[in-house]
Amino acid sequence: MDDTPIDPAPTTTAAEGTTGVSRRRLLTGGALTVGGALAGAGIGVAATGDSGGPTPDPGQARPKEAAYGAQKVPFHGRHQAGIATPAQAHGVFLGFELARTVDRAALGRMMRLLTDDAVRLTRGQAALADTEAELAALPARLTVTFGFGPGLFKAAGLDDQRPASLTPLPRFPIDRLQDRWSGGDLLIQICADDPLTVAHAQRMLTKDARTFARLRWAQRGFRRGRGVQNDGVTQHNLMGQLDGTANPPPGGDIFAKSVWTDSGPAWLRGGGTTLVLRRIRMELETWDAADTKAKEFTVGRRLGSGAPLTGTVEADAPDFEAKDKLGFPVISEFAHIRRAHVTDDRMRIFRRPYNYDDAPAADGRPDTGLLFASFQRDIGEQFLPIQRRLAASDLLNQWTTPIGSAVFAVPPGCAPGGWIGESLLG
Amino acid sequence: MDDTPIDPAPTTTAAEGTTGVSRRRLLTGGALTVGGALAGAGIGVAATGDSGGPTPDPGQARPKEAAYGAQKVPFHGRHQAGIATPAQAHGVFLGFELARTVDRAALGRMMRLLTDDAVRLTRGQAALADTEAELAALPARLTVTFGFGPGLFKAAGLDDQRPASLTPLPRFPIDRLQDRWSGGDLLIQICADDPLTVAHAQRMLTKDARTFARLRWAQRGFRRGRGVQNDGVTQHNLMGQLDGTANPPPGGDIFAKSVWTDSGPAWLRGGGTTLVLRRIRMELETWDAADTKAKEFTVGRRLGSGAPLTGTVEADAPDFEAKDKLGFPVISEFAHIRRAHVTDDRMRIFRRPYNYDDAPAADGRPDTGLLFASFQRDIGEQFLPIQRRLAASDLLNQWTTPIGSAVFAVPPGCAPGGWIGESLLG
Repeated sequence: MDDTPIDPAPTTTAAEGTTGVSRRRLLTGGALTVGGALAGAGIGVAATGDSGGPTPDPGQARPKEAAYGAQKVPFHGRHQAGIATPAQAHGVFLGFELARTVDRAALGRMMRLLTDDAVRLTRGQAALADTEAELAALPARLTVTFGFGPGLFKAAGLDDQRPASLTPLPRFPIDRLQDRWSGGDLLIQICADDPLTVAHAQRMLTKDARTFARLRWAQRGFRRGRGVQNDGVTQHNLMGQLDGTANPPPGGDIFAKSVWTDSGPAWLRGGGTTLVLRRIRMELETWDAADTKAKEFTVGRRLGSGAPLTGTVEADAPDFEAKDKLGFPVISEFAHIRRAHVTDDRMRIFRRPYNYDDAPAADGRPDTGLLFASFQRDIGEQFLPIQRRLAASDLLNQWTTPIGSAVFAVPPGCAPGGWIGESLLG
Repeated sequence: MDDTPIDPAPTTTAAEGTTGVSRRRLLTGGALTVGGALAGAGIGVAATGDSGGPTPDPGQARPKEAAYGAQKVPFHGRHQAGIATPAQAHGVFLGFELARTVDRAALGRMMRLLTDDAVRLTRGQAALADTEAELAALPARLTVTFGFGPGLFKAAGLDDQRPASLTPLPRFPIDRLQDRWSGGDLLIQICADDPLTVAHAQRMLTKDARTFARLRWAQRGFRRGRGVQNDGVTQHNLMGQLDGTANPPPGGDIFAKSVWTDSGPAWLRGGGTTLVLRRIRMELETWDAADTKAKEFTVGRRLGSGAPLTGTVEADAPDFEAKDKLGFPVISEFAHIRRAHVTDDRMRIFRRPYNYDDAPAADGRPDTGLLFASFQRDIGEQFLPIQRRLAASDLLNQWTTPIGSAVFAVPPGCAPGGWIGESLLG
């Protein structure tokens, strides 16, 4: 049902992105001077390259690794990029509040402008109003993904086009939501393997959005640096848990069935999805006080391997029926993975989380947690039942506190010449 | 005079760091399951790897790039690591204020403890009090560098051992210093190519410092992601300028002559240095309003290439005598590179800056700038004259505002079994 290629593998165009640098270096031999000095000092170009291999001639070939900067993810397609795209190392979620005067026509202008910026930036080109064009040259798999919050439909006079379950989530007893991290009419998710690229794209897009909207929050996050771990390996979050084991593999059947919206308003169907973004603070101080056994009991998995307590490797399916010698379930009734478990593939959610770690408090307590981001067809059908089970009796709740919450409809992608949101606002 | 090897090139020990993962994957074949599923979906391991090459067998070889995570920089040596070490992609500067009760003996205990943490973490091993041992496994060129602020000498009753010019910098008219970004008795600089590694090391070290000191500030910064650009290439800062062109190459003669302290108190001589850390806000809103010509006139270099206005490539020496047709200097009297220029090699400073980009204000104005970090033999002899010239009449001052300032003596490195600061506190 959904077999169009989704986010084809990032294209490496080695000739682009760093062209300015290489061409200049090659033409002038300037690099020989700099590189030579560094090489003479026994440090620099060669010193930080992969060990074992021959020392690259600093004036000549670029080490292969530098290709990261030039890699691109196509912006256009049936779906927006930044969803099925293998998660980049850095991401920021920007939540905007629309100005009171903004109506449907203004929203169309805004989305044309922002789409144009995104197209250029993801290609490694400067945005139209970009005065630091140099900073756009290395996209590093940049993706820009737009989402529409409930307030945008109201502003556009299109409340009847809002997916029925796109409303602020009900307050759960575990929530300690703060306004400063919640809500928002427009979401821009910016991800890339390079933090400078993210910062520059954020500035360009924020500048152009400003005529129409006020920035309500910016939430910056990170995963392992590109190349630090193998691509595709599940990563640890800051609590030390492997996070994302149960995710449906992007591009696969289950992913398509559970992520791309197939009911509700026509403008969202086929190519669109929804996003739940929760800012979840980790109570690392008290988590530290728990021993490994308690932590693994809480999660239902081993911390080191990520294997379920009933298995030996991460990929083992948890056996929720298994009992210990005393007849108690090996994976507790209240273990996180049991509470989060979904049997019907269509009911699964796709998590694409980022870690956050902001400046610690004066007493050294970390301000650390997870930007929990999940994509699903329908928030009411998929996210809410899981969240209700977790809120009711997940042992992990002792050490995690939701402090921000926002929901967005994520419009389908667009073809060249089109713009994001056209099927709703056009 | 200073020919001991400095920060030998990072050792890649491919067998370590990710051992847990690889061994488990190899023994159990679990990786085949996960990798197989991803490969079947046409995405994941191979999709984000280097293009062009053969698809790696996900159950077998790690792509070469994943070696970043296992790379290590030796902690021990004549100098502390993190100074001559090629700058890692991520860094945080932590400034602590000592508790009133802390005396020389307590400082000795603190530095033994923190040194032990740093030794372990930089090796990819868990710190002693580390409850998330999994997060220590990938050092990604982690370095931990300690510095002593003026207050530490007082607390230790060793004010006579303080380098004479290690005092808060004089207030310059351009300064708008904020207490929350200034001062500090103890500095911990943590750098690595992976943000998760930095976050984890920060937490471990902060936890152990807490008995002795209160965190006064934490300043997180970034450069290009590892592998995004060639190693050793000068990077753009967030104003679009190439930043660091005039740096003495680490490990070279000029570097040794200008960075390692060779006079003053004996405990610092030979292996030590000093650090000036300035938080410099960039006024990007008004910088945007300037055109390229004005910007280049301000800096004295081309924005794109970094070439001086009198040259064609970045490495060209600026010709400060050159005049234009009307007889005016090509590089203005007030251009940044002229004001910052130093002719005596011993008077040069070594900059190791990081960009910062914190959450923007509600109106979208970016909170962006540079964590300017310079290492030099002596602050009074080297940094101050440059800073005085810049403060007096650098055109760039219109767009940059120093909002934080701190100075530290950076003790020599230590041998295995020793600890940082032993020559002062031992």
